[in-house]
Amino acid sequence: MFDHEDFGEFAEHLEDMVQRKQYAELRILLSPLEAADIAQGMARTEDHYLPVIFRLLPKELAADVFVELDSDQQEMLIQGFSNAELKEVLDELYLDDAVDIVEEMPATVVKRILKNADPETRKSINEILKYPEDSAGSIMTTEFVDLKSSMTVEDALKRIRRNAFDMETINVSYVIDDDRHLLGFVSIRDLLLADDDDIIADIMEQNYISVQTLDDQEAVARALSKYDYLALPVVDTENRLVGIVTVDDAMDVLQEEVTEDIEKMAAILPTEKPYLKTTTFETFKARIPWLLLLMVSATFTGQIISSFEAALASCTILTAYIPMLMDTGGNCGGQASVTVIRGISLSEIEFSDLLQVIWKEIRVAAVCGLTLAVANFGKLMIVDRLLFHNSAITVTVALVICLTMVCAVICAKVVGCTLPMFAKQLGFDPAVMASPFITTIVDAISLLIYFRFATMILGI
Amino acid sequence: MFDHEDFGEFAEHLEDMVQRKQYAELRILLSPLEAADIAQGMARTEDHYLPVIFRLLPKELAADVFVELDSDQQEMLIQGFSNAELKEVLDELYLDDAVDIVEEMPATVVKRILKNADPETRKSINEILKYPEDSAGSIMTTEFVDLKSSMTVEDALKRIRRNAFDMETINVSYVIDDDRHLLGFVSIRDLLLADDDDIIADIMEQNYISVQTLDDQEAVARALSKYDYLALPVVDTENRLVGIVTVDDAMDVLQEEVTEDIEKMAAILPTEKPYLKTTTFETFKARIPWLLLLMVSATFTGQIISSFEAALASCTILTAYIPMLMDTGGNCGGQASVTVIRGISLSEIEFSDLLQVIWKEIRVAAVCGLTLAVANFGKLMIVDRLLFHNSAITVTVALVICLTMVCAVICAKVVGCTLPMFAKQLGFDPAVMASPFITTIVDAISLLIYFRFATMILGI
Repeated sequence: MFDHEDFGEFAEHLEDMVQRKQYAELRILLSPLEAADIAQGMARTEDHYLPVIFRLLPKELAADVFVELDSDQQEMLIQGFSNAELKEVLDELYLDDAVDIVEEMPATVVKRILKNADPETRKSINEILKYPEDSAGSIMTTEFVDLKSSMTVEDALKRIRRNAFDMETINVSYVIDDDRHLLGFVSIRDLLLADDDDIIADIMEQNYISVQTLDDQEAVARALSKYDYLALPVVDTENRLVGIVTVDDAMDVLQEEVTEDIEKMAAILPTEKPYLKTTTFETFKARIPWLLLLMVSATFTGQIISSFEAALASCTILTAYIPMLMDTGGNCGGQASVTVIRGISLSEIEFSDLLQVIWKEIRVAAVCGLTLAVANFGKLMIVDRLLFHNSAITVTVALVICLTMVCAVICAKVVGCTLPMFAKQLGFDPAVMASPFITTIVDAISLLIYFRFATMILGI
Repeated sequence: MFDHEDFGEFAEHLEDMVQRKQYAELRILLSPLEAADIAQGMARTEDHYLPVIFRLLPKELAADVFVELDSDQQEMLIQGFSNAELKEVLDELYLDDAVDIVEEMPATVVKRILKNADPETRKSINEILKYPEDSAGSIMTTEFVDLKSSMTVEDALKRIRRNAFDMETINVSYVIDDDRHLLGFVSIRDLLLADDDDIIADIMEQNYISVQTLDDQEAVARALSKYDYLALPVVDTENRLVGIVTVDDAMDVLQEEVTEDIEKMAAILPTEKPYLKTTTFETFKARIPWLLLLMVSATFTGQIISSFEAALASCTILTAYIPMLMDTGGNCGGQASVTVIRGISLSEIEFSDLLQVIWKEIRVAAVCGLTLAVANFGKLMIVDRLLFHNSAITVTVALVICLTMVCAVICAKVVGCTLPMFAKQLGFDPAVMASPFITTIVDAISLLIYFRFATMILGI
């Protein structure tokens, strides 16, 4: 396996060999490598080296590498291709990969691709392009084996053998009737274990899981992962088989969706490009909306502090503990919200569990809050008062801080666990209800509790 | 596909049918369902219903459901099994699933399982149990097809047919020499496309990717996903084939690792159990260490505020903007760190990119910081000063706040992007360098900048 620490060096090595015109050696170096590794190396080489490196690759490997490159590099290569070269690459591509590439290209390039694809491929690409982005239809392939239920196993194996070369997978075949309605599926293992004259109808699995063309790609990927299938059939509203989604594409979808969730949790608008490929302005655009919104919402905390200005002035030591209380509240809320968001996306938590979740968080919060309060009380009295000789920290001041701690932690955990569940129930993405958003709310709550206790206990 | 909103209801329905003793109907209801769905329903039923429901399932489905249950429920069922029942379930399990189950059971149950497994299975389980947790060896299966390079395609297909029933997959077979050294692999598609008398050595793929028994399971799963294989061979240090890791297990590993990363980013120690199955104490234990640590580190921010107490007292309005500055800094740092952490785990960012990353973050931060500062200046002068008649907000005060904003954002982004990269380089998990940790550091930096500008510009 390639050690991924090395792609920077690998890219330099490639550039160096091109500069020295060591083309034959380069071809020998690249031929046994995996397409994904070559692409990762090429992604790090200067653009003007790409066409040379690409043309040195054996035809089949070249197509595999092409699929793995990012769309900027694909576009650059296509721009430099002759029509014959373009056709050669297109002929080697699987249909769903061709569609992925077409989806990312500007209109002029798409036109050239479609013009150079053979008529059948062109028709299939156009079909798939009609499905909305992120739908099952948009990630499926139409290159699958279909069988009739009346076939014998021998017929089926013959058909598979005849078509194997162009198919994305032959590990599962799908059984359809004359109107292409899906009846069931049969794995290559079942076929090999059966007798040659067995009838497909008798050996096929009729309890199948299928998805519809407009289902969300994430739901499809999760289903594939959950049910441990290597492919899922995609049907239209009348249960006619139109394509399949294979496990390798499902894995990519899951990775993308996780990245998107993580970005949302960090108050970033999702971008599809890898980090180093985005421009400063793109990254700025993805980050600034939430920053602005959260900055403006922080106004409330400012208002709260302003309205207790007199109290703070009469007991200035209270100010020093505002950041600690706010951060602890934010961290507690963030823990709860992130746990619940992940639980929701793994289908471990449903809305009907709301009360159970809240009750659990209250108990956890009570224990966490008490532990933190006791630790904090000790720290206040021993470190801050005795060691740092800060005489302003009296037992009552410490009490105010620690009581606030307990209450703030409980509020934070409850807010943190409920907001994502309500977001999900109302049809929003629960991931945006993560730490940054929760922090802003919890900050205000913590401050209100703090000043409430301060006025009550210290009488200020 | 099952709508996952419904498992609570589904569980109630199951319980209801058991209570009414509608066993025949229950069997008819469950038989066509997917094992994963039945298990998800059973996970939500009261424990004492489980044995009844489980015994109603057809034998093969029962084993599949058993694998999908969580370990508490598996243990409970095993405790209630007769030896014959246990043996029946064990015989249906794939080896790697059996190992997964054994790994989670207490010693007494493990003993019973091993006693009831057939001798060969027992030996294999014991083999796999020797590999450390989270290693490739611990998630592999030994149930794969191996071929000799001298075989003809006809021999190979015969061997596959003969062994298919017990194999985890027959989609790929591995070619070994007499000492079990791995030579290459051949897919079932290649075999079906070849002529019966072709020799395996001539059609096998010799450029294979393999992993070693002690490789980390996450690296293995990532490799499977990157290279789009359905299985990867696992070899020992002398390249002898000892097992394979299949794509369904790789998907599970990726999901687990992502959950772990997300938990770490939210300052939670990873737990393997689903949220609703953990006890209050377990959740507490996972959350309290970071909360305590982060609370104690917040002491520095307190110290900084204390040491500028006099300045704050002479210009109390400054206090009101502490939370906003701290939160914005924290959010900016969090965005940068999370983006970089994800980039590292997707191998998009390497340590050699450090300067490029920092330079990018500085540019993004400059644009973000300026935008936020301008927006904030407008808000301070129009909303806070004119609308809320807060005369303490002079142009110079607004200037202090906005200058702090720009500098804090830049520091936050730089700290946010560098810490995960150094963590990775030093062999730590970059995920712990996420928002909560960054926030604590950035808070202190923001405050220092704030007070520095305040003393400089306001002369306090």
